[in-house]
Amino acid sequence: MISREDAAALDGEDRLGSLRDEFVIEPDGPIYLDGNSLGRLPRATQARLSKLVAEEWGLGLVRSWDDWIDLPTTVGDKLGAAFLGAAPGQVLIADSTSLNLYKLASAALAARPGAIALDGYEFPSDRYVLEGLAQAHGVELRWFAGHPPDGPSVDDVAGALAQGGVRLVVLSMVSFGSGAWADVEAITEAAHDAGALILWDCSHAVGSVPIELDASGADLAVGCTYKYLNAGPGSPAFLYVRADHQPTMRQPIWGWFGQADQFGMGDRYAPAAGIGQHGVGSPPMLGVAAVDTGIDVLARGGIDALRTKAVALTSLVVDLHDEWMAPLGFELGSPRDPDRRGAHVSLRHADAWRITQALRAEGVIGDFRGDGVRLGPAPAYTRFVDVWDGMARLRDLVAARRHLAYGVETGRVT
Amino acid sequence: MISREDAAALDGEDRLGSLRDEFVIEPDGPIYLDGNSLGRLPRATQARLSKLVAEEWGLGLVRSWDDWIDLPTTVGDKLGAAFLGAAPGQVLIADSTSLNLYKLASAALAARPGAIALDGYEFPSDRYVLEGLAQAHGVELRWFAGHPPDGPSVDDVAGALAQGGVRLVVLSMVSFGSGAWADVEAITEAAHDAGALILWDCSHAVGSVPIELDASGADLAVGCTYKYLNAGPGSPAFLYVRADHQPTMRQPIWGWFGQADQFGMGDRYAPAAGIGQHGVGSPPMLGVAAVDTGIDVLARGGIDALRTKAVALTSLVVDLHDEWMAPLGFELGSPRDPDRRGAHVSLRHADAWRITQALRAEGVIGDFRGDGVRLGPAPAYTRFVDVWDGMARLRDLVAARRHLAYGVETGRVT
Repeated sequence: MISREDAAALDGEDRLGSLRDEFVIEPDGPIYLDGNSLGRLPRATQARLSKLVAEEWGLGLVRSWDDWIDLPTTVGDKLGAAFLGAAPGQVLIADSTSLNLYKLASAALAARPGAIALDGYEFPSDRYVLEGLAQAHGVELRWFAGHPPDGPSVDDVAGALAQGGVRLVVLSMVSFGSGAWADVEAITEAAHDAGALILWDCSHAVGSVPIELDASGADLAVGCTYKYLNAGPGSPAFLYVRADHQPTMRQPIWGWFGQADQFGMGDRYAPAAGIGQHGVGSPPMLGVAAVDTGIDVLARGGIDALRTKAVALTSLVVDLHDEWMAPLGFELGSPRDPDRRGAHVSLRHADAWRITQALRAEGVIGDFRGDGVRLGPAPAYTRFVDVWDGMARLRDLVAARRHLAYGVETGRVT
Repeated sequence: MISREDAAALDGEDRLGSLRDEFVIEPDGPIYLDGNSLGRLPRATQARLSKLVAEEWGLGLVRSWDDWIDLPTTVGDKLGAAFLGAAPGQVLIADSTSLNLYKLASAALAARPGAIALDGYEFPSDRYVLEGLAQAHGVELRWFAGHPPDGPSVDDVAGALAQGGVRLVVLSMVSFGSGAWADVEAITEAAHDAGALILWDCSHAVGSVPIELDASGADLAVGCTYKYLNAGPGSPAFLYVRADHQPTMRQPIWGWFGQADQFGMGDRYAPAAGIGQHGVGSPPMLGVAAVDTGIDVLARGGIDALRTKAVALTSLVVDLHDEWMAPLGFELGSPRDPDRRGAHVSLRHADAWRITQALRAEGVIGDFRGDGVRLGPAPAYTRFVDVWDGMARLRDLVAARRHLAYGVETGRVT
């Protein structure tokens, strides 16, 4: 039996408790367990955006580009150092995750033509982007099954590779649905052994689990910044190209922000030598600034403390699931082993969509994915009592069958 | 002889004079003649962004996506109605101009394979994007010369088309360098007569000249929103696909924001039936909101009044050039006929880069492009006395040769 007092005691011991004060949080607002979809607003970001708009744009006008223009790479370097395990010159803030996946997977296919292996449970946009590329390039899409809630395992990946011909493996480091955390080192090794490059989608991993792109031998990576990095709705994504590969990874969208001498405005395209080649058009400066400040705020916690707290928070979700929700027909849709789990948990139920709607109506915000109620208690600002209270409301509404008042599934945005 | 009193008298008669009050303008700030690069901050946008951040993101959290998700199409429709002459369902706010050009030119090449004809003086990013596409698709790039300051004329375009094989013509409606306003109807007809589609880049045209995409028979268009639409640094761009073409124009980047049933998250990509198919990843909501409010503010002036004032402002630049600058070695780099000119003017000079730097140092902001000092007196907020004062400072600094204190060219951002 886990009591609310137990949860409160965990908050009392929480080293990251004060980090919550860095965020805008409405008194008596909803219990927010959807930080893996859209992270909360950092106070510093609100101030930064206000200043950027009023002073840099409003007063500095076009002259502010002198300062803005380097931010996509300097913020990329900061992200690399703080949360990606990437040395400078390999990370760029640009465009959306889907666009960056298109650019990097295109570059990989051009450098090493062959089949693409990916998870059958991969995030839909990634599947669609790769489906389009496979069709355009006339290459095979090779699916590995993934076996939620724990997969895909290195054996799943190796099984797909064993048939030969795969030259690119694309996989989410933390699965958007189950929260399963991939065995990064073993899967990287399996891909390399098969002559394939590995491209990680770090969208649900960055800021929730330790990432070591350089040390793990990752070739390419993409990811989003509006989840655990708290950079706001539709904030720009990032991309990583390992330094060794930069001379040979040529992306297909030749914009002036990828040009070697951008303001020389020469007759012909000549790709920038470094990571800048993967830029295209004018970067969205409000978004890039929000990424910058979002990293600063999260880095005050540090990934080690964030990870420790994420394990404790998701373990509390799992424990309360076992105690309260399993008897009500729920099933854990995430890894039971905390070492294989990101910072969100899926609770499977046949009525998950209606339950998610009812839960929101009762002041607890999670979301619905596939067949589960997805709860993302982001460690930067979520208290253990939030998890306890949210789960208690979930238990009570399902026990009272109040979700049956809700209609058919219409879907929800991430 | 045009006196400052003459300019002040024009301000006194200016129907759009009060529109200036809608913008954040620093008392005793610089004279801003670079609205064609980065437009000024509308007061309403500052308020809108502040509210979006504090309330929609900060308090509404992920629930605000219920309202945000339709904005790229509803704002697209608003832009279409106010400034593009486009009926609903044909305009989308998305990504950057270069990315949108890549998507639509790719779609056109897939639908009608063949050579691409473009202006030798086209904006560099457009040239680079098309160079990359031509290489990838194995098609010819056919250049028409353009003949600045007035071109390209319909004869220039027809000359390139006469050799046969062109299936796509790409052209800026208003040239980024000279400000030349293309003969839209005649060039569209020439393209269609040759069996080619026409794709307009409206970046320097939208909000500065009347645009009638539907009526002119345009097939495709792209453009940016941070110039005359005043949506801020790196704000998202727009794209237009004529309704007739939407079933056959398939862009290659298959993201979930282009999926027919986005939250169904189905196994395979199925493009949305309408203009939404040209979306890719999560839209940058701060930017989309700034476009929305930017359109509202500019629409209070209305394109007819804006156009009338733009002609008067640029005519004042031309007249003062003739009176003051030509004797100092300048040459007009823009059409002398106001009916063939957008809202910016290029003043050519061998020392244009140094002169632009000196001009900024003396409190007048224009920019440097190619071989000219580029002045964009945006009609929404620029006074006739601003033009007079700015030109007078330009005259005085060049006459005193103060620009010679500035060093070598290093380029400037748009």
